[in-house]
Amino acid sequence: MGNQLPTLAVVGATGAVGTVMCELLSSRKNVWGEIRLVASPRSAGKQIVVRGEELTVVPLAPDVFDGVDVALFDVPDEVSAEWAPVAAAAGAVAVDNSGAFRMDPDVPLVVPEINPEQARNRPKGIIANANCTTLTMIVAIAPLHREYGLRELVVASYQAVSGSGQVGVDTLHEQLGKAAGNYTLGARSGNIRQAVGDELGPFPAPIVCNVVPWAGSLKDAGWSSEETKIRNESRKILGLPDLKVSATCVRVPVVTGHSSAVHAVFGTEVEADAARELLRHAPGVIVVDDPAAGEFPMPIDAVGTDPAWVGRIRRSLDDPRALDFFVTGDNLRKGAALNTAQIGELLAPELARG
Amino acid sequence: MGNQLPTLAVVGATGAVGTVMCELLSSRKNVWGEIRLVASPRSAGKQIVVRGEELTVVPLAPDVFDGVDVALFDVPDEVSAEWAPVAAAAGAVAVDNSGAFRMDPDVPLVVPEINPEQARNRPKGIIANANCTTLTMIVAIAPLHREYGLRELVVASYQAVSGSGQVGVDTLHEQLGKAAGNYTLGARSGNIRQAVGDELGPFPAPIVCNVVPWAGSLKDAGWSSEETKIRNESRKILGLPDLKVSATCVRVPVVTGHSSAVHAVFGTEVEADAARELLRHAPGVIVVDDPAAGEFPMPIDAVGTDPAWVGRIRRSLDDPRALDFFVTGDNLRKGAALNTAQIGELLAPELARG
Repeated sequence: MGNQLPTLAVVGATGAVGTVMCELLSSRKNVWGEIRLVASPRSAGKQIVVRGEELTVVPLAPDVFDGVDVALFDVPDEVSAEWAPVAAAAGAVAVDNSGAFRMDPDVPLVVPEINPEQARNRPKGIIANANCTTLTMIVAIAPLHREYGLRELVVASYQAVSGSGQVGVDTLHEQLGKAAGNYTLGARSGNIRQAVGDELGPFPAPIVCNVVPWAGSLKDAGWSSEETKIRNESRKILGLPDLKVSATCVRVPVVTGHSSAVHAVFGTEVEADAARELLRHAPGVIVVDDPAAGEFPMPIDAVGTDPAWVGRIRRSLDDPRALDFFVTGDNLRKGAALNTAQIGELLAPELARG
Repeated sequence: MGNQLPTLAVVGATGAVGTVMCELLSSRKNVWGEIRLVASPRSAGKQIVVRGEELTVVPLAPDVFDGVDVALFDVPDEVSAEWAPVAAAAGAVAVDNSGAFRMDPDVPLVVPEINPEQARNRPKGIIANANCTTLTMIVAIAPLHREYGLRELVVASYQAVSGSGQVGVDTLHEQLGKAAGNYTLGARSGNIRQAVGDELGPFPAPIVCNVVPWAGSLKDAGWSSEETKIRNESRKILGLPDLKVSATCVRVPVVTGHSSAVHAVFGTEVEADAARELLRHAPGVIVVDDPAAGEFPMPIDAVGTDPAWVGRIRRSLDDPRALDFFVTGDNLRKGAALNTAQIGELLAPELARG
C-alpha cells in the first residue's frame, strides 16, 4: 500500500492564469490525487480536460474545500481575501496568486528556487505568490545576490498585455487590426488615438504602436502599485528589508512575456563573465547572451517556457559593483501559474497520507 | 537695404530625416535666403516643395557648396565623414546629424537649449548633432543638472522603428499586417517568428508584438553602440566627463517617438514638486504628469511635436538625491531634424551678409 496522493483544488480554473494552470497540471501526473476545479457560479458546469480526464467546474462555496490538502487561488484580490481563509480553516493550505496577502508578515512569499524553506512557516495556512513582474526577474537576481550581496535595483519594465488578463489580449488584437490597415499611422502625426477610438480595454491609452508608462493604481508620491510591488516583494523574497529599489513600470504591445532592464548594484565587485557563468547554473534561469549572433532574451521566445531568460549581461562601465542585464519571462507561467504550481508541489510530499 | 539672408544646403534631403527637415524649413520663412536640396545621384532631379516653392534636388558634388553658409547633413556616417569637411573647406559651416564627428574634441556637440555658446567654437567648421536617443531625453535632464548637480544616469530606452529609417517603418507595417490576422499570436506559444517569417528588415528579430534589447553595433564588453553613445554624448553635452551612465537600449513596436525611463542621481537632495516646476519652465520641455487623470508622456502624443514630454516624475523612495521619470520625444524632430535646424538658426544671424 503506497501513500495516498494529496487532493488539490484550483480556484479560478477558467481564467487566463487558471487555464495555464490546468495545462501545467496535465504535465505533472504523479503529484496530486483528486483535482477539483472551482470557479465563479457563472463558469460552473464548464468541462475542462486535465491529465486527459474531463472535469466539471464546480461553483465556489465553503464545502468545495472538504478534504482538500492544497487550494491554489488564481482570482482577484477581493475574492482571495474572502476565500483563502475559508480554505485554510477547512484544513487546506491556500496558495494565493493575488496581492491580498503578499505583504502580510504571517504569510510567506515563496519562490521555490529562492526561499522554499519559508513555505513551512505558514501560521495562517496561506502562502502567497509574488506579482508577475517581480517573479519574471527575481529568479535571475537571487543567485547574483547570494554571490555578490545586492544593495540596489533600478528596474524598467516592458510588460505584456496578458498581465491585464484575457481582456488585455483581446484589446491588443482589436487594435492590431485597426493599425494594420493604416500605413501613415503615427509616422509623423499622432493619429493612433483616432484609429483606435475609444476601445481602450483595461489600458489608459491605446496600446498598439505605443508604450504606456503606467500599470496598476496610484500610490503615494506618484508611484504606481505595480512599482511599489516590485520594491516590497523583492525585499521580502530576498530577505533584504532595506534594499533600495526604483522601478518604472511600462506596458508595451506584447501579448505575453514580461521583460525588465535591470541595473543591479552589489556590495562587492562583479565580473560579467563570472555572473554569466553563475546564472548558467542557477535553477529556473536560461542565459541567452550572444549579441554578435543576434541572441538576446525576447518575449516572443520566452512565451510558453518555464525559465527566466537572461542576457545583455555587462558590467557597468563606471561602477565595478554594478551589473546591467535584460530579463524576460512568461508572465502567465513563472509569473503566475507555474510558480503557484511549484509551491503546491513543494507541499505535496508532506501532505501525502500514509 | 537690409541684410542678405544666408544660403542653406540640406544634404540628404530625400531621406526620412531630410523629409522632416524640408517640412520644418517650410515653417521658418525669414531665416534663410536660398535653400539648396542635395542628395545622392539616385535621388537627384526629384522635386520637393519647401516654403511653397518647388525645388529640384541636385546631386552631391563639391560645387554644390559654392556660396553656401550652412550645410545640414542628414546622411550616413561614412557620407558625412567624407563630405562635411568638403563643405567646411568651401566656407560653409557643416551641421552634421551623423555619428562621424560627435566625439571629435574639435567638433562641438550642440543642443541649442543647453549649450548654444559652444556653436561659436568650431575649429573644423563642423558642428555635430547628438544621437536621437540622447537628444530626446537630454533636454529634460540638463535643467535638473543645473539645479541639483547630476552624478549618475540609469536609462532604459523604448526606441521607435523610424530610428532605423524608412525601412524600419515599412518593416513594422508589414509585420502589423501579418500579426493582425493571427489571433493566437504569441498568447501562449512563440509563433510570432513563424507568422513574420524572414522579413526582419533592419532588425535582428521580429519587432511586432515583441521588444528587442538591441540597437546599433557591438562595442566593448557587451555594450551596444547606441548605449555607449548615450553615455559619451550626455557627458560631452553636459560637460561632465566623469558622469556615471548605464543605458540599456531596446527597440519597441512604435512607429515614431523614442522614450526613456530615467533614474537620475544628483549631488543634492531633490523634491519631485520642485523638479516638476523647474521642468515646466525649461525650454523645449513639456510636463505631462497627472497619472490620476491618465496623463503621462507617450510616443503617440509626442510624435509630430517639438518638445521633450516628461512625466511620472517622482523621488526615489530610498534615496532623497534620486529622481525617476519617463521622457518621450519625436526622434525625427528633436531627435534629428529639429535640433539640426535649430543649430543652423543659431548661426544664421552671424552669417547674414550686411
